[in-house]
Amino acid sequence: MNYTTKTIVVRYVETDQMKFVHHSNYLKYFEMARLEWLASLGVSYASMEKDGILMPVISLKTELKKPLFFGDEFQITVSLKRPPTATLEFVYHIVNQFGQKVCEGNTILAFLSSEKNCPIRCPKFLLDLFT
Amino acid sequence: MNYTTKTIVVRYVETDQMKFVHHSNYLKYFEMARLEWLASLGVSYASMEKDGILMPVISLKTELKKPLFFGDEFQITVSLKRPPTATLEFVYHIVNQFGQKVCEGNTILAFLSSEKNCPIRCPKFLLDLFT
Amino acid sequence: MNYTTKTIVVRYVETDQMKFVHHSNYLKYFEMARLEWLASLGVSYASMEKDGILMPVISLKTELKKPLFFGDEFQITVSLKRPPTATLEFVYHIVNQFGQKVCEGNTILAFLSSEKNCPIRCPKFLLDLFT
Amino acid sequence: MNYTTKTIVVRYVETDQMKFVHHSNYLKYFEMARLEWLASLGVSYASMEKDGILMPVISLKTELKKPLFFGDEFQITVSLKRPPTATLEFVYHIVNQFGQKVCEGNTILAFLSSEKNCPIRCPKFLLDLFT
Repeated sequence: MNYTTKTIVVRYVETDQMKFVHHSNYLKYFEMARLEWLASLGVSYASMEKDGILMPVISLKTELKKPLFFGDEFQITVSLKRPPTATLEFVYHIVNQFGQKVCEGNTILAFLSSEKNCPIRCPKFLLDLFT
Repeated sequence: MNYTTKTIVVRYVETDQMKFVHHSNYLKYFEMARLEWLASLGVSYASMEKDGILMPVISLKTELKKPLFFGDEFQITVSLKRPPTATLEFVYHIVNQFGQKVCEGNTILAFLSSEKNCPIRCPKFLLDLFT
Repeated sequence: MNYTTKTIVVRYVETDQMKFVHHSNYLKYFEMARLEWLASLGVSYASMEKDGILMPVISLKTELKKPLFFGDEFQITVSLKRPPTATLEFVYHIVNQFGQKVCEGNTILAFLSSEKNCPIRCPKFLLDLFT
Repeated sequence: MNYTTKTIVVRYVETDQMKFVHHSNYLKYFEMARLEWLASLGVSYASMEKDGILMPVISLKTELKKPLFFGDEFQITVSLKRPPTATLEFVYHIVNQFGQKVCEGNTILAFLSSEKNCPIRCPKFLLDLFT
């Protein structure tokens, strides 16, 4: 099971003086991809937060194959690396407008109760979605 | 009454492909200046938020005289434009390591009750500080 | 003459702990609007930069009427305030998914020769576009 | 051989609505640490770029142990993981004002000729510094 995002266009402000997209932005792109995926599955992360469930990133990894430049258009394919447990591990691939693989990465997210400020298990509706 | 910040160094990520600091970053610098000033007066903005008082920016203005570059060092002088009312208006001047005026700007902040989600008056301890 | 952007969705990373979009992001949104407008008119800003013409922002102003939140969808209408001279002044209005006016702002951009590092006049093809 | 940065204070804009520092910012902190280290060794990265040598990040990894909050003060210890080759691998540890380990990470940087737009070897002065 995986999901491919709508086309995303590189913003001018995302470049740095090397003329490449600054590497920190790939993490922002990954976040957009997983939230867009969840939304496509009917899961509003905004509502989850209102219900007291936070999903902070606790681990991240990215391999950059080719730079992205201002105005480039790309899509991200996101999938789960393994069935959900106490954490969720997402895998991402970014492909640019020329069909070139730009980067791949993964992030691990935990579940946190905002009220008790402690780790909790994956909510049942997410477990059901992904298994 | 005014305050001059510690020296701030331009971060690489704050540049864009023009090699200048992206203009959106000046607003971040101004924010650092007013929070550092408040802290120097014994006011913890973090505590204010915990007490339910938010200070969102509702108006901003910046004139950029000279670009800042990666590695540049600068200081910000911040002052109040007028005694506090329902809003606070801060004025900022940025001067670089060569003593050159880089930019000036101002921001107007409102007071908001996070509980009631509505505008409130300037808290008395801030009024007392600034009058 | 004015232009209205495609719908833009607020990214999670654009919020701050007040839960509002941080005010510095409005400048990034305005930039997207004017570059999308130029692109729609057949002007590639990336090409302009390769030809040695930079367009730094030298003045900016924003009035924030209502906050934007994570997941909000909005559009920006951008227009020129006056015929181009040595500078270009753009005016922006942001309207959210409920048709509410979120903010308005304007930015003044100069023309700069990247080779000579000095101000230049508005290129003829832009003058022709906007007059 | 390693280096510990000056104290860095978390900026308000670096938080997101979870009230934590957004994970993308750790990469910006790491960048500050390695550039501050290079500067302390007499290496100006700005000059390297002017001489046509770029150092893009091609791989990154971060484990987040504890969140950072607005106003937190932290220091980064940075070291080289191995002697320089065609790439440089930096390792980072962030410790907050309470002496708690906040996160650790590493980044691999390549050397790129900005003129020829192709990978090059580690410049001799860097090799000499780090071996």
